[in-house]
Amino acid sequence: MRGVVLNGPGDVAVVDRDNPKIVKPTDAIIKVTAACVCGSDLWPYRGIEKSEGPAPMGHEYVGVVEQVGDQVKNVKVGDFVVGSFFASDNTCEICQAGYQSRCVHAELMGAIGTQATYARIPLADGTLVATPGMPDADLVPSLLAASDVLGTGWFAAVAAEAGPGKTVAVVGDGAVGLLGVLAARQLGARRIVVFSRHADRQRLAAEFGATDIVAERGDEGVAKLKELTGGLGAHSVIEAVGTQESMMQAIRATRPGGHVGYVGVSHGVVLPGDELFFSAVHLHGGPAPVRRFLPELIDLIWNRTIDPGKVFDLALPLEDAAEGYKAMDERRAIKTLLTP
Amino acid sequence: MRGVVLNGPGDVAVVDRDNPKIVKPTDAIIKVTAACVCGSDLWPYRGIEKSEGPAPMGHEYVGVVEQVGDQVKNVKVGDFVVGSFFASDNTCEICQAGYQSRCVHAELMGAIGTQATYARIPLADGTLVATPGMPDADLVPSLLAASDVLGTGWFAAVAAEAGPGKTVAVVGDGAVGLLGVLAARQLGARRIVVFSRHADRQRLAAEFGATDIVAERGDEGVAKLKELTGGLGAHSVIEAVGTQESMMQAIRATRPGGHVGYVGVSHGVVLPGDELFFSAVHLHGGPAPVRRFLPELIDLIWNRTIDPGKVFDLALPLEDAAEGYKAMDERRAIKTLLTP
Repeated sequence: MRGVVLNGPGDVAVVDRDNPKIVKPTDAIIKVTAACVCGSDLWPYRGIEKSEGPAPMGHEYVGVVEQVGDQVKNVKVGDFVVGSFFASDNTCEICQAGYQSRCVHAELMGAIGTQATYARIPLADGTLVATPGMPDADLVPSLLAASDVLGTGWFAAVAAEAGPGKTVAVVGDGAVGLLGVLAARQLGARRIVVFSRHADRQRLAAEFGATDIVAERGDEGVAKLKELTGGLGAHSVIEAVGTQESMMQAIRATRPGGHVGYVGVSHGVVLPGDELFFSAVHLHGGPAPVRRFLPELIDLIWNRTIDPGKVFDLALPLEDAAEGYKAMDERRAIKTLLTP
Repeated sequence: MRGVVLNGPGDVAVVDRDNPKIVKPTDAIIKVTAACVCGSDLWPYRGIEKSEGPAPMGHEYVGVVEQVGDQVKNVKVGDFVVGSFFASDNTCEICQAGYQSRCVHAELMGAIGTQATYARIPLADGTLVATPGMPDADLVPSLLAASDVLGTGWFAAVAAEAGPGKTVAVVGDGAVGLLGVLAARQLGARRIVVFSRHADRQRLAAEFGATDIVAERGDEGVAKLKELTGGLGAHSVIEAVGTQESMMQAIRATRPGGHVGYVGVSHGVVLPGDELFFSAVHLHGGPAPVRRFLPELIDLIWNRTIDPGKVFDLALPLEDAAEGYKAMDERRAIKTLLTP
C-alpha cells in the first residue's frame, strides 16, 4: 500500500508500506476513504517536536472495514466507520467516565499512521463507530472531521462549559478553534467571540456561529474582550493553540469562576501558579476523548444539522501529501483532506 | 483597642490600635468574639512572603455587630455574625455566580486585621451572615472555622467534585486539609485518603471521616495512592498546601478526568503545561468564595451536624498571639484560636 512518512522536518514523502495485518483478535483493518493533516502534525513537520524519520503520519480517518479479528463484534466487514486518534477499549473505568483518550489500554493512532491506503485499528470494538449506512460523498469530509478536529473542538467547548446564556471566547482560529465555534453554537452559547486576524478564517468563524471577531492578541486581545463583556471576561474560553501566549490569553480572558477548555497540544507552556490561583478559573483539557462524542457527532452530521467538513479548504490525492502539509504550514490552507 | 501586628518575620506583637469607625454607609463595626491564626499568616511570619511591618494581622472572625452604616439592612446591632476573609457585595455578577472572593468590589479583610478587639467590615450586607441567635460558647470555635478554614476546605472539596461513590485524596494535613476531609465526608465521598505523617493530625482526620492514611509524600505518596485505587488514582484530590511539590502530588494523584481542588495559597508554583495537558485532570481552586457556603455551613454547625471547631487545639487570649503563631510555626498546634 501507499502511506505518508515524515523523513525529517519539512520532508514529507509518500512511500510503499507493507499492508497492515490483524495482529490481535481485537483489531480491524480498514480501507481508508479519507484522511487528513492535523495542526499537531505541523509540530514535527516544523521541527519543533522531535521525531525519528521515516515516521508514519496521520491519526484521523474514515473508511470501510476490510477485515476484523476473531473477537470483534461491534463492527463488521463493509461498515463505514469513524474512529478517534486514540484507540480505546471503551469499557475500562476511565473510558466509562468519558476519558477514552486516557483509556488504560489506549493506543495512539499516530504511531500507526492513517495517511495511507489501509490502517490497522486496535481495539476496534471500542474505537470505531459505524455510520447508519454508506455516506453520500459530500458527508465524508464532515465525518472525517469528527475523527479529531470536530471532536477536539467539541470537547474544548464542553470542557469550557459553553452553553445557554454563556459568552464564549475562542483563542486560535485554526480548524479546531473554528469547530470550537461550531460546537459552542450547537451547545447554545449566547455570544461567541473569536480571536482572529485572517479574513478567510473570520468568514468561516461567522458561518459557524461567531458573533464577534477580535483581531488583537495577547493582553491587548484580553483587554478588548473585557470591553465586550462589562470588564468581566468570558464565561467560557476555548484554547486551541498550545503556546505560552495562547494559554495565558485564555486564562486572562476568562472571568473568575469561568472555564477554560484547552486542547492545543501544550508546547513549552509553564503556568504561573500564583496567577492561576487568583484567577479562580476552571482549567480542563488535554487530548480530547473524541470517542465520547462520536455517536452524537455522527448523528448531527448524518442529519445535516452541522457541516464541519467546511474546514477542509484543500483536498488532494494522498500522493500529493507533501503539498498538503506545505499549504497548511504556510497558512494557505486551514486543513488538508487526503484521498488515498 | 488592642490588635495583633507583624513587625517583621517572626515578630508578632499585640499593640494599641485606633478603634475602627464607619467609613462608608455600607460598613459595619463588630466586636470580635474570636479570631484565629491562619496557615497563610505563616507565609509572612516565616518571611517567605514579604510584608511591610507593622502590619495588622488576621482575616478570620466571628463577633457581635456594634454599629452599622446607614445603608446596612441585612444585619443589625446585636447580631452574632460570621463573615469571610474577603468582603464582597454579594450582588455583582461574579458574586451571583458564587465567586464572592473575586467580587468586583472585593476587599481583603487581612488588610484590616481581625486579630483585634474590634473590626470594620466593609460591604456588611454582602459579607456578614447572622446566626439564628447568640451561639452557645462551645459553638463559637466551629462558627469561627466557617469564616475561612472550614469554608476553604469545603470549597476545595466542592472544586474537587467530592461526592457519592468518589475516592477523595487530601494533600496537606493542616486545618484546611483536615476540614477538606470533613467536607468530603459530608458531601458523601465513599473513601477518603489523607496524606499525613503526624499522629495527632491522622487522629483528627480519622475523626472527620478519613478512611485511609498514607504517610509517603510526593511521587512515593502518589504510587501508594495508586496501589489503593486499582492503579488509577483518586477521582477527587484536595490540595491544601500551595507548594510545587504539593501541587504536583495532587495532579499526579488524580485519575484522568478527575478533579483537583486546590486552595493552598500558591507560592513559587510553576505548572508544566505538557504534563498538565496529558494528565487530563480538571483544575480548579483559588481563594475560596467562603460566602457562598456560609448559610449552609452555619446551619450544619448550629444543628451540631459537624464540629469543625476541633481543629483549634490551642486557645489563647489575644494578648498571647505571639505564642499562638509560634506554636503553629513549630507544628505544636494545628490552629490557634485567639480571644480578645
